[in-house]
Amino acid sequence: MSLENILLTIEYDGTDFSGWQRQSHDPSIQATIEDVLSKFSGKKTVLYGASRTDAGVHAKGQMANFETEPKMPADKWASFLNANLPRAIRILESRQVPDRFHAQKLAQSKIYEYRLLQRSVPSAWDRTVGFYPIRLNWDAVRKAMPYFIGTKDFKAFQGARASVITTVRTIYRFDLFEEREGLYRFEIEGSGFLKQMVRSIVGTLIEVGSGKRSPEDIPRILESGDRTQAGFTADAAGLCLVKVNYPTLH
Amino acid sequence: MSLENILLTIEYDGTDFSGWQRQSHDPSIQATIEDVLSKFSGKKTVLYGASRTDAGVHAKGQMANFETEPKMPADKWASFLNANLPRAIRILESRQVPDRFHAQKLAQSKIYEYRLLQRSVPSAWDRTVGFYPIRLNWDAVRKAMPYFIGTKDFKAFQGARASVITTVRTIYRFDLFEEREGLYRFEIEGSGFLKQMVRSIVGTLIEVGSGKRSPEDIPRILESGDRTQAGFTADAAGLCLVKVNYPTLH
Repeated sequence: MSLENILLTIEYDGTDFSGWQRQSHDPSIQATIEDVLSKFSGKKTVLYGASRTDAGVHAKGQMANFETEPKMPADKWASFLNANLPRAIRILESRQVPDRFHAQKLAQSKIYEYRLLQRSVPSAWDRTVGFYPIRLNWDAVRKAMPYFIGTKDFKAFQGARASVITTVRTIYRFDLFEEREGLYRFEIEGSGFLKQMVRSIVGTLIEVGSGKRSPEDIPRILESGDRTQAGFTADAAGLCLVKVNYPTLH
Repeated sequence: MSLENILLTIEYDGTDFSGWQRQSHDPSIQATIEDVLSKFSGKKTVLYGASRTDAGVHAKGQMANFETEPKMPADKWASFLNANLPRAIRILESRQVPDRFHAQKLAQSKIYEYRLLQRSVPSAWDRTVGFYPIRLNWDAVRKAMPYFIGTKDFKAFQGARASVITTVRTIYRFDLFEEREGLYRFEIEGSGFLKQMVRSIVGTLIEVGSGKRSPEDIPRILESGDRTQAGFTADAAGLCLVKVNYPTLH
């Protein structure tokens, strides 16, 4: 029997998970979904995710594919999985894609958002915002942001213990919106992102906004290739994978 | 020693609580805060809340006052409480108010919001939205909303087992916003609200939007004074107490 390649669009609240990738002990998003699929099919099923989001990071549009015998119409996998997954993981869509499709390898660009609450107290009810108690100079932040746009070596914004062939990435777009008073949202689209790259960019921008650094420091930090020159790694809670774009599908 | 009257502005994620009011068994917001205050002062402290929000209902601006010996500057109660409360309850502000001030009795008007996600799948990460899978006719909903504005008998929109002297309330304002595609927010301001009143109004509007009722049915439902004539009680998760207004304080 020929296999089908099923692509899932996945939303999750990452608060209580160890991140996307399966790990030996802690509960990951990937393992939670794979376990439902493997139990149902009676054989080990592997889910290929577009982004290895870190512990505590959320997703509105993670993409992941798996191969399966044709057990049900492709669009029914979503409701089957939703009935068997914890509420914090929701499958928004399931559909059949060509055999050669691979959610991670074929990703053309990814959009992340980082939401930041500027308030003396963290949010009681919004689990998807980072929190910073000091009033920031948002004009300085806006002035610093364009330095990140383009094809650059982002080694200085890569978390520890990461191993990749190249640390060069392209940022296509980097915007800042004020959702409401005191709640800011960064939107960044890039060809790909290094480990903790968005969070260390946001952490550095917070340091610009608090006057610890100037916007003009950014080019020098990028050129240094030295993680210790960049700012702190902003709280995972504020980060969310919004969308993954593919050349043929969107 | 003379007592001080302290007013708290409280935000909470009501998901895991049995509502505002202390009950014999289940964990309530009131009991959780009172227990911290009582333990600290060594005597039973009572917290007077402006609104008795139901189980699962949230608040961005619940108001509550308590009497205490002057143990610390009034504005320090917020950080003391935040250090001793679960993350789902945050004290946004604490301040001293006149002895005669009572958060519930002096409330002049209250603003609630109800957020509704129109999608086939509930939200994985937003715990503060109700969810309805069917596409609604929002023009019909908008047409029905003005019938609720004014001084009226809302008996038909009162939940079971409620005992109040009068079921007449005044609605000052009732607005609808589309926050983003598929996410709608009702904002309603009134002199006060009966038990489950906002949720049964929203449930009735959902039935208008799905074509089960027409906007012109609303006056007849109000006149009937009969709960069975109105629509279903919308999910508590979408409801949030936004603000309580007082004559002298705001």
